Amino acid sequence: MLNISNIVDRLREIMNDEDAQTQLKEELDSYHSADLADIFQAMKPEERLQCFKMLDLEKAAELMEYLTPQLQVELLGDIDEELASKIITKLPHDAAADVLGDMEDDESETYLDKLPHKFSAEVRELLTYNEDTAGGIMNPSVLTVNCDMTVLDVLNYIRIKAEQDNLELYYIYVVDKQNHLLGVVSLRSLLTSPINKKIEDIMICDIVKLHVDDYQDYIADVFMKYQYNALPVVDLYNRLKGMITWDDVQDIVEEETTETIYQSSGISTELVDEDKILSGNILNAIKARTPWLFITLIGEFIAVNVAHHFDATLSALPIIAIFMPLLAGLGGNIGTQSITLMVRGLSTGQVTLNSALYHIMREMLIGFCIGIFFGTMTTLVTWGWQHNVELGIVVGIAMAINMTMATIIGTFTPFALKTVNIDPAVASGPVIATTIDVIGLAVYFTLVSTFLLHVI
Amino acid sequence: MLNISNIVDRLREIMNDEDAQTQLKEELDSYHSADLADIFQAMKPEERLQCFKMLDLEKAAELMEYLTPQLQVELLGDIDEELASKIITKLPHDAAADVLGDMEDDESETYLDKLPHKFSAEVRELLTYNEDTAGGIMNPSVLTVNCDMTVLDVLNYIRIKAEQDNLELYYIYVVDKQNHLLGVVSLRSLLTSPINKKIEDIMICDIVKLHVDDYQDYIADVFMKYQYNALPVVDLYNRLKGMITWDDVQDIVEEETTETIYQSSGISTELVDEDKILSGNILNAIKARTPWLFITLIGEFIAVNVAHHFDATLSALPIIAIFMPLLAGLGGNIGTQSITLMVRGLSTGQVTLNSALYHIMREMLIGFCIGIFFGTMTTLVTWGWQHNVELGIVVGIAMAINMTMATIIGTFTPFALKTVNIDPAVASGPVIATTIDVIGLAVYFTLVSTFLLHVI
Repeated sequence: MLNISNIVDRLREIMNDEDAQTQLKEELDSYHSADLADIFQAMKPEERLQCFKMLDLEKAAELMEYLTPQLQVELLGDIDEELASKIITKLPHDAAADVLGDMEDDESETYLDKLPHKFSAEVRELLTYNEDTAGGIMNPSVLTVNCDMTVLDVLNYIRIKAEQDNLELYYIYVVDKQNHLLGVVSLRSLLTSPINKKIEDIMICDIVKLHVDDYQDYIADVFMKYQYNALPVVDLYNRLKGMITWDDVQDIVEEETTETIYQSSGISTELVDEDKILSGNILNAIKARTPWLFITLIGEFIAVNVAHHFDATLSALPIIAIFMPLLAGLGGNIGTQSITLMVRGLSTGQVTLNSALYHIMREMLIGFCIGIFFGTMTTLVTWGWQHNVELGIVVGIAMAINMTMATIIGTFTPFALKTVNIDPAVASGPVIATTIDVIGLAVYFTLVSTFLLHVI
Repeated sequence: MLNISNIVDRLREIMNDEDAQTQLKEELDSYHSADLADIFQAMKPEERLQCFKMLDLEKAAELMEYLTPQLQVELLGDIDEELASKIITKLPHDAAADVLGDMEDDESETYLDKLPHKFSAEVRELLTYNEDTAGGIMNPSVLTVNCDMTVLDVLNYIRIKAEQDNLELYYIYVVDKQNHLLGVVSLRSLLTSPINKKIEDIMICDIVKLHVDDYQDYIADVFMKYQYNALPVVDLYNRLKGMITWDDVQDIVEEETTETIYQSSGISTELVDEDKILSGNILNAIKARTPWLFITLIGEFIAVNVAHHFDATLSALPIIAIFMPLLAGLGGNIGTQSITLMVRGLSTGQVTLNSALYHIMREMLIGFCIGIFFGTMTTLVTWGWQHNVELGIVVGIAMAINMTMATIIGTFTPFALKTVNIDPAVASGPVIATTIDVIGLAVYFTLVSTFLLHVI
C-alpha cells in the first residue's frame, strides 16, 4: 500500500506553490478515495480543508464515505453550507444519515432543511432508528420489482432505474404492491436465465432477512454465518425497508472486535461508547476503566486479608514474602491464557458447552505439565540462589499447584458464566485474576506454615 | 437464529424411525446449508454420516463449503470414493483445494486422480501456493472478456459461460490475449450502460489488485480499506490468475482477530498454528503457551530480587508484605488497559505514531486521576482496618504512583515497539506486566524504608 507520509510531504510542497493549483487538483484526483481518506487523516486541519475545496462534487462525496465521522463533521462544517448540502445529497442515504447523525441536532436540522424533500424525508426516517440496529445501518434505496415481470423487463428497468436513483446492485428484491418482500433474485441468476422467463419462476422464496430492530452483533453473526453480500431488512409486517451490505458489516465487525478486546482487559464498553474511550473527555475514559479496577481492588483486599491471617508465618520467615509476586504473576498469566482461549473459542463456536468437560480436562493436563516444569525450574533457581533446598521445594510445589489451579479456574469460569447466560467476555478477566491471587496465596502460605516452619 | 439442539433432537427421533427416511430427507433439504452445517457439527459422527448420505449431490457440495475442515475430511473419508470425487468436482476450485489440502497427501492424491483432468490440474496448481497467500486463497475460475466486445456481447457471453463453468459473478475482468489484466467492469455498469457500448469505454483501468504471493493479513487490510466485494489476483507479469471474494476475507479476518486476541494474553501463534492450540496434541498447546510464561518467570525473578534487597525492611515490618499483591494487581490491571487501548488503536488506525505524545499525556492524566482516587481509598481502608494512619498513607501513595506509572509504561511501550518495527501486539502484554511489578515493588519498598521505618 502507499507511503502516506511521503505523499503528504509532496502535497504540502505543491500546496505552498500558488501557481500549482491545477497540479494539486490532478494529484488529488489521481488517488483512490480510500487512499485520499488516509492522506486527509494525516494532514493538518487547514491543509485538508484546502485540499477538500479543490475536489469536485462526485469525488468529495466518494471521499466522504471513507472518512472518519470526526473528519466528516469537521470538513462539512468548514465549507459553505450550500456546498455541504450538495455533497450530502450525493451520498447514499445510509451514509448521509451517518454524517448527519454525528452532528449536533441544530446543525443537522439546518442541513436537512436544505436537502431535496424526498431525500431529507428518507434520511429523517433513518435517523429515527437506533444507530446500532438494522434500521439505523441499512440503506433504504433498494431496487424492487414485481413477480410478474420477465427477466428482460427487469434488465430494461435496471438500465434506467439504477442510474437514476444511484442504487447499489447486489440482489433484486421482489415485492408485492404493498411492498411486502416475496422473493429475491441474484444478479447471477438474472444474467443467466432466459430473458422471457418470469421473475417468479427464478426467485428464491426462502429468504434470509433482517428486521429493522435487529442489533448489530446479531447482524454480523448472520452475515458471517450465511455469507451473503447483502441482506434485505423488513419491518414487523414483512415490508421491505432497506438493505444492509457487506461494507456496513465490516464496520460492525471491527467495532465488535474492539469491544471484545477492550472487555477482555477490563475496559467496560457498556457504560461508555467504545469510540469515546481513546480520545476526547477523559471523564469517559475514567468511567470506562474504573468499574473493573474497583472490583479488582475489593478482590485484592481479600487477598491482603488472606495474607494477614499468616502474619505469624511472615514474621517468623520474612523471606517467603518476596516470592509472592512470582507466584501471582505466573498464576495470573497462565490463567489469563486459559480464559482467553475459552472465551474466544466460545465466541467463534470452536468451543461449545457440550465440549466443556473435554476442555476442562485438557487444560488441567496442560496446566499440570507446564506447572511441573515451571515448579521444577523455580525450585532449582531458588535452591541455587538461597542455598535452601526446603524453601526451593515449597516455592516450587506452590508454583506447580498455583499454575494448575489457575488453568482450571480460567477454563471453568467462562463455561459457568455462559451456562447462567452471563457473557464470559465481560466478566472473566479481572475477576479470575483476583480469584487466582487469593487462592494462590492461601495455598502458598498453608504450604509454608505446614512444612517450612517446622523444618527451619 | 435457529435452536440447533432442539432440531438435532427432532432429527434423532426421525432417524430412529426406519419408515421415515423420506421425511428425514425433506427435513434436511429444508434447511439452509449454513444451518445444516451447524446441525451436523452438533451431531454424533455416525448420525451426521447417516444424514449426509441422504443429501443429493448439489446440497452435499453446498453444505461442504460451510463445514469445518475436520468435518469435511471426516465425511468424505467415510463415504464411497466415487461419490466423494463427485462432490469435490461440484465445489468451487478454491473450496476443493481447501478440502484436499486438509487431507493426508496420499489420500488427496487418490481423489485428484479421480477428478476430471482440467479440474484436477487447476486444483493442483492452487495446492502449489502457500495456503496463507492470495494464490492459496483465490478462486481461479473468473469470467474474463476482451476489450473490443460490446456490452451486449458480454451479456450474451455471461448467459452461456457463467452457467456452464459455475462461475461466481462479482466483476467482469477485461484481459488481452495473453491474459494480462487490462480493466474491470462492475455488474452495475454493465447493466446500466447502453448495450452497444464497447467494454473498453466503460472499464476502469486503475485497478486495485492483489499478487499471488500477498499474505493474508495484507489481503484483509486491502479489502477493509477499499471495501470491494472481490479483487483480482495477478502474477508478477500482471497475468490474471484468479479472484478473492468477501467470504474468503471473512475467514481471514476471523483468524487474524483470533491471533491478535491470543497474542495479547501471551499465547504465541508464530510457533504453532492458531487452530492447533485449542484441541488435539497438547504438546502444541504447551509450545504456544510456554515462551511468554518463561519470560514472565525471568521478569518475576527480577521482581523477587528487588524485594530481596529490602529483606531488612521486611524483617522489621512484616505487615508491609501483605500489600504486595494489592499493588501488583491494580498496577497490572490499569497497565494492561493502557496497552490494550494503544495496541488496538494502532491496529485500527485510530492511534498513530504522530499522536503518540497526545496519548501518552492523556493516559498519564487518566492514570493520575484514577491513581489518586484508588490511593485515597486504599489509605482509608488500610487506616480503618489496621488503625495505623502512617501505613495507610504510605500504601496509598505507593498505589497512586504505581497506577500512574503503570499507565505511562503501558502507553509508552507499544509506541516504542512500533517505532523499532516490532509488532506491539506480540511483545507488549506479559513483558509490561512484569516491568510494572518490578518498578512497583521498588517504589513501594523505597517509600516504606524511607518514611515508615523511621516513624514506627
